[in-house]
Amino acid sequence: MTGMGERARKAASVLAQAPTEQKNKALQLAADSLRANKSRLLAANTKDIIYGEEKSLTDAMIDRLKLDDARIEAIAASLEEIIKLDDPVGDIMAQWDQPSGLNISRVRVPLGVIGVIYESRPNVTADAGALCLKAGNAVILRGGSESFHSSTLIHECLVEGLEGAGLPADSIQLVPTRDRCAVGMMLKMTGVIDIIVPRGGRSLVERVQNESRVPVFAHLEGICHVYVDADADIEKAKDVALNAKMRRTGICGAMETLLIDRKIADRAAEIIEPIAALGCEIRGDETIAALDASYKLATDEDWDTEYLEPILSVKLVDGVADAIGHISVHSSGHTESIVTENSEAAEKFLKCVDSAIVMHNASTQFADGGEFGMGAEIGIATGRIHARGPVGLEQLTSFKYQVRGTGQTRP
Amino acid sequence: MTGMGERARKAASVLAQAPTEQKNKALQLAADSLRANKSRLLAANTKDIIYGEEKSLTDAMIDRLKLDDARIEAIAASLEEIIKLDDPVGDIMAQWDQPSGLNISRVRVPLGVIGVIYESRPNVTADAGALCLKAGNAVILRGGSESFHSSTLIHECLVEGLEGAGLPADSIQLVPTRDRCAVGMMLKMTGVIDIIVPRGGRSLVERVQNESRVPVFAHLEGICHVYVDADADIEKAKDVALNAKMRRTGICGAMETLLIDRKIADRAAEIIEPIAALGCEIRGDETIAALDASYKLATDEDWDTEYLEPILSVKLVDGVADAIGHISVHSSGHTESIVTENSEAAEKFLKCVDSAIVMHNASTQFADGGEFGMGAEIGIATGRIHARGPVGLEQLTSFKYQVRGTGQTRP
Repeated sequence: MTGMGERARKAASVLAQAPTEQKNKALQLAADSLRANKSRLLAANTKDIIYGEEKSLTDAMIDRLKLDDARIEAIAASLEEIIKLDDPVGDIMAQWDQPSGLNISRVRVPLGVIGVIYESRPNVTADAGALCLKAGNAVILRGGSESFHSSTLIHECLVEGLEGAGLPADSIQLVPTRDRCAVGMMLKMTGVIDIIVPRGGRSLVERVQNESRVPVFAHLEGICHVYVDADADIEKAKDVALNAKMRRTGICGAMETLLIDRKIADRAAEIIEPIAALGCEIRGDETIAALDASYKLATDEDWDTEYLEPILSVKLVDGVADAIGHISVHSSGHTESIVTENSEAAEKFLKCVDSAIVMHNASTQFADGGEFGMGAEIGIATGRIHARGPVGLEQLTSFKYQVRGTGQTRP
Repeated sequence: MTGMGERARKAASVLAQAPTEQKNKALQLAADSLRANKSRLLAANTKDIIYGEEKSLTDAMIDRLKLDDARIEAIAASLEEIIKLDDPVGDIMAQWDQPSGLNISRVRVPLGVIGVIYESRPNVTADAGALCLKAGNAVILRGGSESFHSSTLIHECLVEGLEGAGLPADSIQLVPTRDRCAVGMMLKMTGVIDIIVPRGGRSLVERVQNESRVPVFAHLEGICHVYVDADADIEKAKDVALNAKMRRTGICGAMETLLIDRKIADRAAEIIEPIAALGCEIRGDETIAALDASYKLATDEDWDTEYLEPILSVKLVDGVADAIGHISVHSSGHTESIVTENSEAAEKFLKCVDSAIVMHNASTQFADGGEFGMGAEIGIATGRIHARGPVGLEQLTSFKYQVRGTGQTRP
């Protein structure tokens, strides 16, 4: 790992100066190589599937692992999407003159070396590698042992792209081992790795957050709330709540708890029924649980649970202040939304809720770099340092100050 | 410490919503209180001085510790300077519309809880406390044991200001012990303290950087370089080099190594002599050391040494690329400057030198938040995450996304 770290830093210093066209060329050649190596990729993936079945992975995990023609094309196409994104490196973030006559500008530079630790999805190898590269960073990838053969071959295609574009092959390195120790070592590589990004389930993220000495961009969970205010347009509330819960239940931006103002308790059934009708289990407080025989009574634990499944906890609260209070205790700081036509209540919610993303009259499922216009994202961060919310190209950069003078000395 | 942490987080949630006027009122009342308690402050400081003399502190350390009428007035006045600074909280950093109809804004919010660990200067208690407060953060201060009595009384004045303005007294807490364990505990308070800022000598910063599990804003040292290019205006070079080294030799932005293009080796004496004439010891490479009998030959160690004293290492290099190469190996990433009339060389230097601050035709001693127009700073950071360069009010904030819709659901 030490050798990989040194090579990554060396590559990073080259990448920091690489022109956009060169980085894009590497990405295009990598996409071409992925398409050209489709049959080899499918063969490698078959080995992973067999290994996964031997290890008795769940069907869901096997599905995540699996590549087919369409998925390989999607991986190649997503590299081409990253080519289209603006290169943040060299952007002048701010520029001003000082009374001393000095002209000061704050200019984006790459972060340096990024470590990405992920689980079974082999496409992360390409996505994460490409995003880091486009922002001028070297990256050390540590994929899941299940996707070892697939990731190794995808990595080969990325390296073919780098070399074809005249960039260091070490710009994107893959830890060439299934050894779990590699993760522990990466987490201690301060001064070598600048940021660790874990991509995967709760146990992976938790381990990384607990053990890492390197700063981490991540979210542990997304316990997202929708609060329906007394002054809500009930049709909007029904649409937003249904979409926030049921569009996809397994993503971090899915609503897990629905809060409804007690003043409109008589409209609660209307809001909840369409969700239950799609097969979602409802776990409510006493009033809500009594609405329908199929509804269950929520336990204390429910208010702190990220289901990632068609289960929803529902609670009546006493207005926006009480909603904010519940969220401040139970939220994971990811995304919360208020539905109301009352702009005062909306602004209070937007100001006081301390989450990465706070919304008014919108589904929490919009919590996504693409929907924010940031292009591809490497994840969503709930920390407060450097990156918060979707982590896209800009969040994978740092900055420096360039100061231009005419011979100034300081009095 | 756990209790202090909990109280700080509670205070932080109140401070996050506190209006600018209320924070400013607390600062003004604290300044008033400092002036009103001048004689008590002097008495407390005398206790610290006696303790320091018993502990055989150096004269320089005793001087740093010492308060007098002028210094107390300066502390009060610096609080009033912070009142004048714009409050960054609530600033809209960016705002845009998405095709979905969602309006997205990125809004500044406080970081949360900041831990400041410092040594003997009692004024840091006031400065650091006030800066964190103005940016809406709660702060836990851990002052040096030498300034214990002075810091305790300054802290009392700050708390008087907070209470007078109706803000939580726990917004600014001082660790009420000389126990060194407190530092170790603070460094492990992830999830409670968001950022640690060490203020002090190398050994303190090194300990904090090595042990902290909480992200750190700091610089370990400032090995700053000035490179005089072949195309430099020699008069400018003389002025900039003299100022960069000798204006104040003990600050982190002071030049420690002077690089001169070998093509103008015949002008080196002219540039160095005025510096030596002010009593600066010159340690040069073979050519430079031979210029004057009083000059010494530099050892390998000199190129990696932050003297913070009137000592300067001087080396001839082969043009701007070689200068950049030397800096990339020996710099601490703080501040470097090129003196040249050649704009191509200047831009190459500004682009390729990977330091927090890179300058053209200006003294490295301008590396300062005030000179950058950022107002007071809590320090200068050489890390690449979140803050880099001067750490002022803006760098003590985070942000969140506010999303305003009209009932949008995600397709």
